[in-house]
Amino acid sequence: MSAPGRVTLIGAGPGDPDLITVLGLKRLRAADVVLHDRLAAPELLAEAKADAEIVDVGKRPGDDVQARQRRIEKLMIERALAGAHVVRLKGGDPAVFGRGGEEIEACAAAGVPCEVVPGVSSIVAAAAVAGIPLTHRGVSLGFAVVSARNADGGEPDWAGLSGADTVVVLMPSRRLERIGRGLIAAGRRPATPVAVVERATTTEQRTVRCTLQTLAAGDFAGQIRPPCVVIVGDVAAGRSRFPRTDG
Amino acid sequence: MSAPGRVTLIGAGPGDPDLITVLGLKRLRAADVVLHDRLAAPELLAEAKADAEIVDVGKRPGDDVQARQRRIEKLMIERALAGAHVVRLKGGDPAVFGRGGEEIEACAAAGVPCEVVPGVSSIVAAAAVAGIPLTHRGVSLGFAVVSARNADGGEPDWAGLSGADTVVVLMPSRRLERIGRGLIAAGRRPATPVAVVERATTTEQRTVRCTLQTLAAGDFAGQIRPPCVVIVGDVAAGRSRFPRTDG
Repeated sequence: MSAPGRVTLIGAGPGDPDLITVLGLKRLRAADVVLHDRLAAPELLAEAKADAEIVDVGKRPGDDVQARQRRIEKLMIERALAGAHVVRLKGGDPAVFGRGGEEIEACAAAGVPCEVVPGVSSIVAAAAVAGIPLTHRGVSLGFAVVSARNADGGEPDWAGLSGADTVVVLMPSRRLERIGRGLIAAGRRPATPVAVVERATTTEQRTVRCTLQTLAAGDFAGQIRPPCVVIVGDVAAGRSRFPRTDG
Repeated sequence: MSAPGRVTLIGAGPGDPDLITVLGLKRLRAADVVLHDRLAAPELLAEAKADAEIVDVGKRPGDDVQARQRRIEKLMIERALAGAHVVRLKGGDPAVFGRGGEEIEACAAAGVPCEVVPGVSSIVAAAAVAGIPLTHRGVSLGFAVVSARNADGGEPDWAGLSGADTVVVLMPSRRLERIGRGLIAAGRRPATPVAVVERATTTEQRTVRCTLQTLAAGDFAGQIRPPCVVIVGDVAAGRSRFPRTDG
């Protein structure tokens, strides 16, 4: 039997290949097997060893998501048990809507050592390219992060996020109207600033600024391309458009 | 007059110098001036050019925080207007409790170009080292991030975060009891799992697991060293200790 292998879950960052961490790149270059999402930049895959096995395990239209996830875990464990250093390269950060938890569990259940290398989440990347602070003295004391769609197709508990000055919504592209309506129904001002950040840090990045009211009115239906991030709150008015609150 | 300079705000990551991004390291190596927090690793400062001006602008006990922040902005703008490429190296990510917004505004007001290079936040780094997914199918649909202490000394609106399955509290070290009591008073189960992650990704990292009840009872008073992150919610029970919810 070969030496025991291992798994490294790596957050590849939000899109720009230079936004992987130095440690993530080091591990990627040492991998025997790379299982990557569709979000991973081609430039990053080119960093793997010439004889590394590269497998695209990204989602395809019509996929059974659960079955796909189980196939990824099976492949990861099989290769690691055969002695390989398996890198699971995920867009953003593995702990945030990346099913990292399920993959950590699968490794633990199989007795395979698993390391997590955190990455730059699309949350902070979207904030960076739009010049938005997620927290800002006197304006935003905290933020909440939700997916626009729960696993059962339901919506987040918008009212239950009233204590968060800023709300960040991931995977929102087909639900922009609902997000706007839901947050207004939960008591947010219709004039609350919104920034929709498309493809942050890639060459195709674009930021659209609006309000909850225009979002709810459907003004952007069909005009926003995934992946994107919606930032809702006074900070989303952006650079130099929120008040200075101290001297 | 010299050529116009510029400012780059860089998220240096959570502690391990290898958790800076490739882009952040590239900009740091090109800087004429580096203004750094006390959290920046010495290994990172050694990456700057030999003739770069390195200034420790970190917080000191007894500092007037507002006055210090204005001094940092003044220095940043002065050097940039004199033609320098100024790197502002901040722990974690600049958009998350890093006063990045104030520094972006100061640059905009002075007409100095300002780029933000996002970084690995201590939020996801703490999750990574503790093997905790911040979101997890069927267990955590979203998370909220707050500071244990608002600018006025007040506490977060714990009840207003009821819609977030997971709550991440930054800068909690002297307020562990209050966090436990506040969240229980807001309706969370006393048995809710908690992970307190100290100095994530550094050689001194440590994770303490408990419940809201033991946190509220003060069992950890004086035993936790900053910087640390508190993760509250069923996911905080950690690796393989939350239920698999699908086949």
